[in-house]
Amino acid sequence: MSVTAAQGFTASGIAAGIKVSGNPDLALVVNNGPRRAAAGVFTSNRVKAAPVLWSEQVIKAGQVSAVVLNSGGANACTGPKGFQDAHATAEKVADVLGRGAIEVAVCSTGLIGVPLPMDVLLPGVEKAAAQLSEHGGEKAAIAIKTTDTVHKTSVVTGDGWTVGGMAKGAGMLAPGLATMLVVLTTDADLEPETLDEALRAACRVTFDRVDSDGCMSTNDTVLLLASGSSGIAPEFGDFAEAVREVCADLGRQLIGDAEGASKDIKVEVVGAASEDDAVEVGRSIARNNLLKCAIHGEDPNWGRVLSAIGTTKAAFEPDRLNVAINGVWVCRNGSVGEDRELVDMRYREVHIVADLAAGAETATIWTNDLTADYVHENSAYSS
Amino acid sequence: MSVTAAQGFTASGIAAGIKVSGNPDLALVVNNGPRRAAAGVFTSNRVKAAPVLWSEQVIKAGQVSAVVLNSGGANACTGPKGFQDAHATAEKVADVLGRGAIEVAVCSTGLIGVPLPMDVLLPGVEKAAAQLSEHGGEKAAIAIKTTDTVHKTSVVTGDGWTVGGMAKGAGMLAPGLATMLVVLTTDADLEPETLDEALRAACRVTFDRVDSDGCMSTNDTVLLLASGSSGIAPEFGDFAEAVREVCADLGRQLIGDAEGASKDIKVEVVGAASEDDAVEVGRSIARNNLLKCAIHGEDPNWGRVLSAIGTTKAAFEPDRLNVAINGVWVCRNGSVGEDRELVDMRYREVHIVADLAAGAETATIWTNDLTADYVHENSAYSS
Repeated sequence: MSVTAAQGFTASGIAAGIKVSGNPDLALVVNNGPRRAAAGVFTSNRVKAAPVLWSEQVIKAGQVSAVVLNSGGANACTGPKGFQDAHATAEKVADVLGRGAIEVAVCSTGLIGVPLPMDVLLPGVEKAAAQLSEHGGEKAAIAIKTTDTVHKTSVVTGDGWTVGGMAKGAGMLAPGLATMLVVLTTDADLEPETLDEALRAACRVTFDRVDSDGCMSTNDTVLLLASGSSGIAPEFGDFAEAVREVCADLGRQLIGDAEGASKDIKVEVVGAASEDDAVEVGRSIARNNLLKCAIHGEDPNWGRVLSAIGTTKAAFEPDRLNVAINGVWVCRNGSVGEDRELVDMRYREVHIVADLAAGAETATIWTNDLTADYVHENSAYSS
Repeated sequence: MSVTAAQGFTASGIAAGIKVSGNPDLALVVNNGPRRAAAGVFTSNRVKAAPVLWSEQVIKAGQVSAVVLNSGGANACTGPKGFQDAHATAEKVADVLGRGAIEVAVCSTGLIGVPLPMDVLLPGVEKAAAQLSEHGGEKAAIAIKTTDTVHKTSVVTGDGWTVGGMAKGAGMLAPGLATMLVVLTTDADLEPETLDEALRAACRVTFDRVDSDGCMSTNDTVLLLASGSSGIAPEFGDFAEAVREVCADLGRQLIGDAEGASKDIKVEVVGAASEDDAVEVGRSIARNNLLKCAIHGEDPNWGRVLSAIGTTKAAFEPDRLNVAINGVWVCRNGSVGEDRELVDMRYREVHIVADLAAGAETATIWTNDLTADYVHENSAYSS
């Protein structure tokens, strides 16, 4: 049920004509209250798309009445006109819904450096508003797809309250966020500050640790909207855990649908002296193109793992490193371990454990293999 | 003429039987003096191969009589036995040549985590010594090839003195060195400290700025040996420039032969506030998989360039960035510039200029495109 699983929300997804394919390309999510508290996390890329610049302003007040999202164009690197277009889109939503534009967040995804076709986008907003429904969550999730092969939704239910969400993203997944648009909704009755704390804590250990191809987007946005319509204010720990679960579920779905990937790789770093060390090592492994190719070829090439660990500043001794691939400790004490022929790599999920033997901290980074299909998808003209 | 272009050196390259293919796999370079001054630069990877650990000790005294190099096995992540093997190889060379083992540098390249076949390697040393010749430079360059399609040599001649060299490397090229073995020789009459200064200065702006796939090797080694047999001590500036030219030439050859690449990409960062900023931005662009795929598809996707710049800490304003691809300023002031259709990308060399409009410093990083062939070469079993 996506963003409409929680009470107090309506949504829709329609084809406005932004995509030349005629596929759905415009989604609307509306918070019908009684509260409209919100929090957001945005790309840390310093080259930010116009809708990100707009929505960062919106989220400062902690109040969001509606989110309008389009696929078919990122509205990034489009100059002052791009910002005017994002603003105009928010104004149009505000007019149609009878709200203030400063409470309307805007998200865009698609090609960089191309202006949005406002002549079809603005009429599309009216069409989307006319189709708003308590059952519109799926359609909204479908309308934000770009190269995604499936739409992604997730719901976790608490004691009388719910957290639900939708996500798009299928490449350019990297820290500081995975490239994606995510809208989460809840009917819990919470303040913006509480939402913000829960959302940042969840992103830090979920979307921030999804690193499909090391590339950071200009458009990443994760929003959390609370309607308060359940009338329940859950314990912070319970709520934060529910948000983390939804984010983790959506993050896992993003990795599972990454462009051209044939493997989902769970890089688990253990025995680290600090969590920062564990994350640094996990990212270094997850970004090693040679390892990603080897995994694609079902080659348990632990030498590539050690090479990647060796480029980090983490605390470790080379002759104490251990590496397991799918449960087989192919590297022990920095040298040859168990027989690599024992490693079964037939399945899509691959589990690499890197033991730094330097402490008790851990972190897990998810990534994908590097494939000819990835190259193909991203080398076609203006993919 | 490779490493035998300078007076005072002999070299050889033979098939010892380390490679199952039967191709040449063992090279020997001998400094016949009268001087045997030397300098070396090694991988900054903290997981270092046994021969690197050995040669780092050798180079400390600034004296090298001979270098023995093998392809067909990296002797990396091979534990204490690996170090014993590197040591035993140096001892064997020392015995055969009547020198001290502590003056014999050892280099290895090939698969990580597999012990060297010492039963064929040691007899190979005798065979290589028997074939030492003042014309052996080419054969030595051929014997160190792994996936290289061509051998790489370069010579620069000064006023009565010469700098020559050979290199291997065709992938895993990254900063802190490109993955490679390089041996440079000169008949100039210089102290080890002078050689070291010239070599480090040259590496910093050549091999350190070659970044084919962002992956750093465990085995990188660049050695510079001086025989002094010309009897000439050139001005430091002249000598350093000659070393830089040879390194730049070899570095360009490495990029031109990178595994599976179809494009050589020159990333030139201009208008930077500092050289460090320029290098950071250049590396970020050079490592962006999405851009590398786009270039493979001959797509002048400047949005990927801006995304990559945006992930750095360099000084710049997003709305002042300019990007040219093959001479066409496709991005001006952070937005759409000249018509992308004007960009001609048919040729192997692609030139990207990223103007940060924040100062006067520059840096150039060389990289390759990302191709299905790269994936194929690196996903075959234990490539």
